[in-house]
Amino acid sequence: MLVGAARSGDARSLARLVSLVENGSPELRPVMRAVAPHTGNARVIGLTGSPGVGKSTVTDQLVRAYRAAGLRVSVLAVDPTSPFSGGALLGDRVRMQDHATDSGVFIRSMASRGHLGGLSWSAPQALHILDAAGFDVICVETVGVGQAEVEVAGLADTTLVVLAPGLGDSIQTAKAGILEIADVFVVNKSDRPGANDVSRDLRSMLAMAPDRRGWRPPIVLTAASAGTGVDELVARVAEHWEWLGESGVLRERRVARAREEVSAIAVADIRRRLGGLPGESRLDELAELVATGKLDPYSAADDLLAG
Amino acid sequence: MLVGAARSGDARSLARLVSLVENGSPELRPVMRAVAPHTGNARVIGLTGSPGVGKSTVTDQLVRAYRAAGLRVSVLAVDPTSPFSGGALLGDRVRMQDHATDSGVFIRSMASRGHLGGLSWSAPQALHILDAAGFDVICVETVGVGQAEVEVAGLADTTLVVLAPGLGDSIQTAKAGILEIADVFVVNKSDRPGANDVSRDLRSMLAMAPDRRGWRPPIVLTAASAGTGVDELVARVAEHWEWLGESGVLRERRVARAREEVSAIAVADIRRRLGGLPGESRLDELAELVATGKLDPYSAADDLLAG
Repeated sequence: MLVGAARSGDARSLARLVSLVENGSPELRPVMRAVAPHTGNARVIGLTGSPGVGKSTVTDQLVRAYRAAGLRVSVLAVDPTSPFSGGALLGDRVRMQDHATDSGVFIRSMASRGHLGGLSWSAPQALHILDAAGFDVICVETVGVGQAEVEVAGLADTTLVVLAPGLGDSIQTAKAGILEIADVFVVNKSDRPGANDVSRDLRSMLAMAPDRRGWRPPIVLTAASAGTGVDELVARVAEHWEWLGESGVLRERRVARAREEVSAIAVADIRRRLGGLPGESRLDELAELVATGKLDPYSAADDLLAG
Repeated sequence: MLVGAARSGDARSLARLVSLVENGSPELRPVMRAVAPHTGNARVIGLTGSPGVGKSTVTDQLVRAYRAAGLRVSVLAVDPTSPFSGGALLGDRVRMQDHATDSGVFIRSMASRGHLGGLSWSAPQALHILDAAGFDVICVETVGVGQAEVEVAGLADTTLVVLAPGLGDSIQTAKAGILEIADVFVVNKSDRPGANDVSRDLRSMLAMAPDRRGWRPPIVLTAASAGTGVDELVARVAEHWEWLGESGVLRERRVARAREEVSAIAVADIRRRLGGLPGESRLDELAELVATGKLDPYSAADDLLAG
């Protein structure tokens, strides 16, 4: 029912489906079954970077550009810290208003409420839903350096790492593994001093990076709030998309993504079963023993699983 | 053997024990058994914040202050992005040199190499080892906003959230759930313009925050590279430590931490068993079906678990 309505363009049904994912609803099973045959068409673009680099502005410009090209676009803003505050939702609503009358755009924040497998469990399922709903492009935007960034790269066909001058973290973020996850580098706020330094630093690091099967991540300078550099960014993303198809990497990435997704669901299932075992009620007791040094955690885990 | 040597102050043995954790070695079981009776004495201080705020400098100043007070101090720098680059290790060695001749200080970076349960699996075990080795204070330092931050808060008795003016992210990081995890706010680089704005913003947000059983997170202004504000920070952390004990929250946090640790080990164990099942070899095949929309991920997970 919901799936049919969402596929025919009903935003409310689509929003409800994403909420099912967010809440880890048991209704997801039939939903995912209904959705599966309609998946595999959307291009997934991941955007990541430190707070303050202007990820949302870059995303908004991509949305505009793809809309102008007649494509249907969705934005999934993933907030890995939301178990606490659900903080992205306000910004979400503000941004949504820009496109409120455009049924070709769907913007949604998603919290991973710390339940089950977290992001690795919920985000891929939301992507399937948006994909089946007929969006041509899905932008997955996430904040922060760290695990979430790495996870988002795992979800995307093309990963954009967004940097900006003057944040004092160009080297720090670079060493934090972004070289390996970026398909395209975006140096945003390029109208500010220091932008050329950032791109020079990136270039010299890229020169030392291992070969990536023929793809050399380009560096695009943008000033997204003024729209500068957006055309070039769209062109580079399109080139990466072509390369993905020709090299066979697209298929590999998508199979790897499915592999992670299936594993995450299997582990969450097991976890839920553990929760139903007598062992779970003993977990508090075991935790008390471990906290006071009376038992080591491995023996406690053995005990829990034997329960 | 190693445990005994580490407990008598041998830094090399200690380093080897932490490496066992990092590598997920099977030798950990007997190690954790030997270590358990000697745990529960160290105070764990977590430090988190965006890149560029000066976390390492704040940590270094805390190390100095605690050493001056005659305490043995360890720093565990957790890099959630290291599966790729192991990037923190260089900075680690540089910092280590400052204290190279001081056997009362042990500094160590730890990567969570994406194996098993990641950070939630490895960091608590490293803490047990450092605790048993007789360190009075363990500073756990992590980069980034996001899941890693939340996980570090889960590890610490006292969590310091470090901010700095001019990073353009005071509001963004604030909305990202830091209000709920911070026991003490540190506004570092307070000699730069904007520091008062950051602390005013924090104060007004704190005024609206729910009660935390009587603890109101203080805001401490520091300029850590000059040592300014460090004494006050140490005093506030000490107050929090007292409050933890008197309120009973210390015991609760430590039991909750042990609960997470035991669960993470149990889940990692199950995951490993899954890996040994015939189903695992079928995972590639199932992933292929999911990636091409021929099967939904739930049915694939069922199939995997039934294997």
